[in-house]
Amino acid sequence: MSDFSAVSVIRTKRDGGVLRDAEIDWVVDAFTRGEVADEQMAALAMAILLRGMTTAETARWTQAMISSGERLDLTGLPRPTVDKHSTGGVGDKITLPLAPLVAACGAAVPQLSGRGLGHTGGTLDKLEAIPGWRASLGRDEFRTQLADVGAVICAPGGSLAPADHKLYALRDVTGTVESVPLIASSIMSKKIATGTQALVLDVKVGSGAFMKSVPAARELARAMVELGTAHGVRTVALLTNMDTPLGYAVGNGVEVAESVAVLAGGGPADVVELTVTLAREMLTAVGLPDADPAAALADGRAMDVWRRMIRAQGGDPDAPLPAAAETEQIRAAADGVVSQVDAFAIGEAAWRLGAGRARKEHPVSAAAGVLLHRRVGDPVRVGDALCELRTDDPATLPAARAVAAAAFQVGSEPPAPSLVIERVTADR
Amino acid sequence: MSDFSAVSVIRTKRDGGVLRDAEIDWVVDAFTRGEVADEQMAALAMAILLRGMTTAETARWTQAMISSGERLDLTGLPRPTVDKHSTGGVGDKITLPLAPLVAACGAAVPQLSGRGLGHTGGTLDKLEAIPGWRASLGRDEFRTQLADVGAVICAPGGSLAPADHKLYALRDVTGTVESVPLIASSIMSKKIATGTQALVLDVKVGSGAFMKSVPAARELARAMVELGTAHGVRTVALLTNMDTPLGYAVGNGVEVAESVAVLAGGGPADVVELTVTLAREMLTAVGLPDADPAAALADGRAMDVWRRMIRAQGGDPDAPLPAAAETEQIRAAADGVVSQVDAFAIGEAAWRLGAGRARKEHPVSAAAGVLLHRRVGDPVRVGDALCELRTDDPATLPAARAVAAAAFQVGSEPPAPSLVIERVTADR
Repeated sequence: MSDFSAVSVIRTKRDGGVLRDAEIDWVVDAFTRGEVADEQMAALAMAILLRGMTTAETARWTQAMISSGERLDLTGLPRPTVDKHSTGGVGDKITLPLAPLVAACGAAVPQLSGRGLGHTGGTLDKLEAIPGWRASLGRDEFRTQLADVGAVICAPGGSLAPADHKLYALRDVTGTVESVPLIASSIMSKKIATGTQALVLDVKVGSGAFMKSVPAARELARAMVELGTAHGVRTVALLTNMDTPLGYAVGNGVEVAESVAVLAGGGPADVVELTVTLAREMLTAVGLPDADPAAALADGRAMDVWRRMIRAQGGDPDAPLPAAAETEQIRAAADGVVSQVDAFAIGEAAWRLGAGRARKEHPVSAAAGVLLHRRVGDPVRVGDALCELRTDDPATLPAARAVAAAAFQVGSEPPAPSLVIERVTADR
Repeated sequence: MSDFSAVSVIRTKRDGGVLRDAEIDWVVDAFTRGEVADEQMAALAMAILLRGMTTAETARWTQAMISSGERLDLTGLPRPTVDKHSTGGVGDKITLPLAPLVAACGAAVPQLSGRGLGHTGGTLDKLEAIPGWRASLGRDEFRTQLADVGAVICAPGGSLAPADHKLYALRDVTGTVESVPLIASSIMSKKIATGTQALVLDVKVGSGAFMKSVPAARELARAMVELGTAHGVRTVALLTNMDTPLGYAVGNGVEVAESVAVLAGGGPADVVELTVTLAREMLTAVGLPDADPAAALADGRAMDVWRRMIRAQGGDPDAPLPAAAETEQIRAAADGVVSQVDAFAIGEAAWRLGAGRARKEHPVSAAAGVLLHRRVGDPVRVGDALCELRTDDPATLPAARAVAAAAFQVGSEPPAPSLVIERVTADR
């Protein structure tokens, strides 16, 4: 087919029509091969964003993206496989304790993760704060580690859903990210291609999340649960609060340290609660509802898997994490109770300090970040430290200081926010 | 500015916002320089198509496209300048007799024309059927001919509105042509950059036109009249009927022959009527309301200018036009009165015979086309020739035959269509 077909597909969607299966198959394949040009796919993505896609169109689009590469076959493993995906939040280090915890309870976790862009961190960036740890694994290494250790967190190879890889990069520069069908198909094509039997989605809602409202998050969750279910992956989604950061640590090395504290049986209550809640969902989804993840944290089994997982990828779990060259305390200007710690602002402060990147090709600092000293509900007095800024580059401090200070509101006692807002399943 | 700005401009329009002047200036300039990528402009064009632009945004966009190149200065000429633009129709050869006619009546006509794509022909393609005639003129040649002959029909140089040139090519392959603000700014940026004092727009409405309905055509006409007026160009638009072809000839050489017949004082009544009507509008717009274009056709003054105009660009006005290798008659299957000759179908038949092109780089045939023998309102008997197909390539005949035959409907007498539907001026 020629340009004429690309234009006719674009026009159909532009005018509010429904794309036929053959049109979706062709346009995704032709885009992957370079026959449909970037500018044509950009126009189509904008038309999809503004006109929407039906459930059937989104399912077909997802299938076409999966078919652009290979779908891993994990069926020969001795344990059931279950994966988890978070739509991204501030201080969201849950994958780090969760993957070894679920493995310690008898499932295998094939977790292909990403890097951070903007105000939310990336799981691979965090783990790279551990000396020696490497994100890239060959396919045989991946499978061997999954069988032996039960948990792998690594970078996806280029063979999984290459259409999504190319399309995501295009959407990023063309203002076409914020489309539920495109977000859902992007996430699910990669997760389904991994070959997992089950999947638990953590859809973040709030100031620090991509989805700012519960209805928007619910729409995305339902779209993803439908896609997973349609492809034979048992899929459940939780909507969880992201108005305030998870835990006390926001950054790369600091989040590893907090994760290790959780694996050692301690750590912040909200991080422990979400880790255990997601672990129960994952284990139930693969027929292990009687496993006891809280016990596996308390008795050190999860920590044992963590140490084996880090070592298997070249990391030294006992090495000290990088220390920041500069630190600075942000102090309270009034007495009272902390009524808000805005997730987006803390995420931005950490990003400005060097924990995140503005462009894909930028490096991140392992030591930079924000460590909270007070959280929502904590009493404070004038002069108390609210948080600590950490950076390798003192030039970043003025901007980060202003953003971090504005994140805190001190007033009367707020209602305790509910961490898990809603559960979305295929049989809702 | 960086990618961030392109994305923020796209997002503003995508979300239904109004672009600021500085954003429009920047994005058009950066696109012309290649700093804003094709895929970014494609996404923006789709957002503009679906969200629209205000009158002020469209005016600024037009100005930015004019400013991407030079605006010709024609003020030193001894006569007033007036240009005409048609949005394109089937058998629309009006520019050919009109430009020399208006020049014969005392104005100067700087007509930069285009080539055809799809089912409507291009003025330059038609004139190139004349042996020796060339479309490209240097700037000095252009000005000298305008001063000496009073009429120039030629290809635009690359220095006029290069942003439009680049954007139009992009819109053509990304399904973003059909936007009133983008069409209006594209046409008007080129016409205003030509430096003309006045402009008459022939906005076609009907099956063979880009605009299928009067309200859509009126919207485009008003947008263009507003843009011209805002830039100091006296601008008037006529909405004219394009349900059925203009005249009897559809093709390149055949339309030249029909134009010459009009210039000789004969020719089809509708072609003569529209030519004289547009000439009166153009002459009135430059303060020559008492000129008599009908007389200038009858007494040979327009023909004299035509011959000088063709010779000035290397053409031989007396050379025979190319003859087609194959001809075939389409005959009536019933007795009655021709109630419809569908313009789009006849345009498609001519295109299939070789008169038009499917891609910009394709050549066109000077000899191919359709010559109507019967038009709307004509009585026919079974076996009468309805039209003649002409082509250099007999392989094109079967498809063209089917399309051309379906263009004709024979029934009872139809109402005589009005050629000029509406007049749109700045002071409506």
